Amino acid sequence: MIKRALISVSDKTGIVEFSKKLADLGIEILSTGGTANLLRQSGVDAIDVSSVTSFPECLDGRVKTLHPVIHGGILAIRDNEEHMSTLEKLNITPIDLVVINLYPFKETILKEGVTLEEAIENIDIGGPTMLRSSAKNYNFVTVVTDPTDYCRVLEEIEKDGDTKYDTRYDLALKVFRHTSHYDTLIANYLGKDKEAFPNTLTMTYEKVQDLRYGENPHQMAAFYREIGDKRGTLVEGEQLQGKELSFNNINDANGALELLKEFTEPTVVAVKHTNPCGVASDLNIYEAYKKAYESDPQSIFGGIIAANEVIDGRTADLMKDIFLEVIIAPDFTEEALEIFKAKSNLRLIKINDITLKLEKNMDFKKVAGGLLIQDSNNELVDEQKVVTKNIPTDEENEDLIFAFKIVKHVKSNAIVIAKNKQTLGIGPGQTSRIWALQNAIRNAEHNLVGSVLASDAFFPFKDVVEEAIKSGVKAIIQPGGSVRDEESINVCNENGVSMVFTGKRHFKH
Amino acid sequence: MIKRALISVSDKTGIVEFSKKLADLGIEILSTGGTANLLRQSGVDAIDVSSVTSFPECLDGRVKTLHPVIHGGILAIRDNEEHMSTLEKLNITPIDLVVINLYPFKETILKEGVTLEEAIENIDIGGPTMLRSSAKNYNFVTVVTDPTDYCRVLEEIEKDGDTKYDTRYDLALKVFRHTSHYDTLIANYLGKDKEAFPNTLTMTYEKVQDLRYGENPHQMAAFYREIGDKRGTLVEGEQLQGKELSFNNINDANGALELLKEFTEPTVVAVKHTNPCGVASDLNIYEAYKKAYESDPQSIFGGIIAANEVIDGRTADLMKDIFLEVIIAPDFTEEALEIFKAKSNLRLIKINDITLKLEKNMDFKKVAGGLLIQDSNNELVDEQKVVTKNIPTDEENEDLIFAFKIVKHVKSNAIVIAKNKQTLGIGPGQTSRIWALQNAIRNAEHNLVGSVLASDAFFPFKDVVEEAIKSGVKAIIQPGGSVRDEESINVCNENGVSMVFTGKRHFKH
Repeated sequence: MIKRALISVSDKTGIVEFSKKLADLGIEILSTGGTANLLRQSGVDAIDVSSVTSFPECLDGRVKTLHPVIHGGILAIRDNEEHMSTLEKLNITPIDLVVINLYPFKETILKEGVTLEEAIENIDIGGPTMLRSSAKNYNFVTVVTDPTDYCRVLEEIEKDGDTKYDTRYDLALKVFRHTSHYDTLIANYLGKDKEAFPNTLTMTYEKVQDLRYGENPHQMAAFYREIGDKRGTLVEGEQLQGKELSFNNINDANGALELLKEFTEPTVVAVKHTNPCGVASDLNIYEAYKKAYESDPQSIFGGIIAANEVIDGRTADLMKDIFLEVIIAPDFTEEALEIFKAKSNLRLIKINDITLKLEKNMDFKKVAGGLLIQDSNNELVDEQKVVTKNIPTDEENEDLIFAFKIVKHVKSNAIVIAKNKQTLGIGPGQTSRIWALQNAIRNAEHNLVGSVLASDAFFPFKDVVEEAIKSGVKAIIQPGGSVRDEESINVCNENGVSMVFTGKRHFKH
Repeated sequence: MIKRALISVSDKTGIVEFSKKLADLGIEILSTGGTANLLRQSGVDAIDVSSVTSFPECLDGRVKTLHPVIHGGILAIRDNEEHMSTLEKLNITPIDLVVINLYPFKETILKEGVTLEEAIENIDIGGPTMLRSSAKNYNFVTVVTDPTDYCRVLEEIEKDGDTKYDTRYDLALKVFRHTSHYDTLIANYLGKDKEAFPNTLTMTYEKVQDLRYGENPHQMAAFYREIGDKRGTLVEGEQLQGKELSFNNINDANGALELLKEFTEPTVVAVKHTNPCGVASDLNIYEAYKKAYESDPQSIFGGIIAANEVIDGRTADLMKDIFLEVIIAPDFTEEALEIFKAKSNLRLIKINDITLKLEKNMDFKKVAGGLLIQDSNNELVDEQKVVTKNIPTDEENEDLIFAFKIVKHVKSNAIVIAKNKQTLGIGPGQTSRIWALQNAIRNAEHNLVGSVLASDAFFPFKDVVEEAIKSGVKAIIQPGGSVRDEESINVCNENGVSMVFTGKRHFKH
């Protein structure tokens, strides 16, 4: 039987109505500070916690409920005779229902210009303690930390005078999910400039949406977001039309976005199965899309497009001619939106600050029983060094960097062949580098004469260079660092081809 | 100046020595229960918290320190006149140093056969509250929760009578890392049979090791483990020789292991760049390795091997002839270990329960600003259905399942060609399915006549089937479900080839 409740909330949503109904059911209400005032103003009798503890609220509210009369009342095991006689001896009345939510630490740290002092002051001490006490004693105590649970709890009390065991268990679980989330936010805030890999690593996320399924229909899945300023990422995207994004859509779209962020000039990226299949830059987004499309008109079918400038009518007009899953852009003109209306399944995602990169971004590889964590790959080139007699022309140089940006985002082993800021052939995900080259060449439905080639890692043998040159490649960019670099350089020199070392490898798996 | 300390620890490592030195420095020590007894027995004066609060420890220790005299003493802002005069008025003495560690919740839930009641009883309430109070007031209060910090704290107090600001900040951060870890373990324990995707998702890991670098040398990285029974995974592996595992080693090894777990008969898996490059099953591990090696003698170079039976001398003798990064097996014979000694860089990993699968295993895809989470892909076939006039022979059937197990673990789009439980050609990670087939055929240095083919997803067109049959493929396994399934079936029927639908797609990216 619930006879006594303690109510102290920071988020006051629905608290007056809830408390009124509890009072109507004859439940005695203890409360503190602002909540007590609000309840009394609303005509609900509320006993001050301080009158129960005979101890004043003090230190600007830092100490209110941290008192054995409160925690004894919560923690006593009701079917333990000794516990109950102790309560009686110490003149402690049991507290059966605890309604608490916490100082808004998250909201505080998300405010612009928040100071450390302000953040610290918003670390709740008394609240989590009462939540945790109550949750520990969920066998007997009902604890509510989320206003959406008021209704369920009230219904049960109205019906039986108490809540069900399962309800109390669920609410206790919710408490520990809440306190772990809360303290993780605090730890991450305090640790944001400290070591990236502490001995225990706790991470917390908020659900964006449940997904219909995962990579495959028999896998359940959900999409979560990190807490903080995530401008320029998918979690800040606004969907303007189309079906819900799928697991694979989000994964591909993220890959497309990450690659897109390498570029400042108007650029279009097409991605399929997490690999780019066509990328191009040009003076405007219309030309860039045309080139990206033409670089591989087959693979783009059913793919994902990301563009770093507003999609206008004429570009939309071209795009509508093929089946695309998703188009991501900083915006779409009215005309473009009108054109896309005819394709109601097509997902359009608007991301305002699409070129913005996250300041700090970690990358995971999930392994069974554990997790690999690394800095995301935010660099491109260490030092650009021409290692051949031939020096790339300015145009070749631009194409080399263009291709190297792309090969960084292709699954390893990867080879990209490009010309005039357009990919001609992309060879992704091979267990051997020569196969990656052969794929890039096979996949190219273009004349490769005068093209450039980028490799995500060094050439173990000279075969890649030989075969590339036979196809018409005139300049090559790669990290360098093989014991056989000299052989590759010699082949270039013998054929009037230039080669640039970058000093940075870009494996991606 | 640190004048008063509160000490109450569950882990008593080093606490006597630490307390003695504090007492020698004239610091007054408050303590509770077991810690107080231990200190007194060791000749350290310790004042009972209950004598300070004038409130008895009660409810079997559930309520000891939850008292305003304690928390006021911790939380008062020392340079706030009002706070300090309140303390005086209420006769509260400041507490400057708090040394606490928590009830062993983790150790409790890791014990075999632990009951819910036992787990709940090991949820510490008073401890985390004092830790959090102290950490909130780190400007003035030093809080120690890890015995390895005793030394640093003592040195500073001995030198200056107080700790440094930076030290107190670090210790406060450590507290919130600890409490978030602690409450996450509780939430995960209570929620283990509940919904997989709650609104807030908090996950916690313990560091196994810092890694030299990530996927690339310019990325920092670390390897973490989940808490719980992780038998059969890499985090439970024992390294018998060789260099430290790298980020890419761990990632590849995990892929190899996951694939290996599909098999019960003696099987060897070779992985390169996260894709299998050779897989074979046979009557013993020697034959299985020989076949796996021969299936692609080039790509295996620098690869990772996983075997599900003990590596014996004659197998080791074969393995030693090529450059391998890692060999994983349930064990190695003395003879095998002797042979591998000559290759001191080669990493040998012993995983006892190598065939064991985790009961619950989630898979992540990290995206910028968020996280995709899904059930790991634990299924293989829904219903196996022959859709052609031709029916696969028993042998073909075994090969079909063999190939389908493998294609599930190849990056999409993926095609695997196999015969006699040996892969002949693997086509990974293509943006088009026909390219995946072409790669599988090109990569095969084998006669494909009489082979079987597995595809991770349906065929959008009949071209894959046509080209496969031309190469000699006699039986095909695939999920089915394309609008053009009938065209592919017809091609099979016209050529006396059988085709099996599984009803399960296996995209992997």
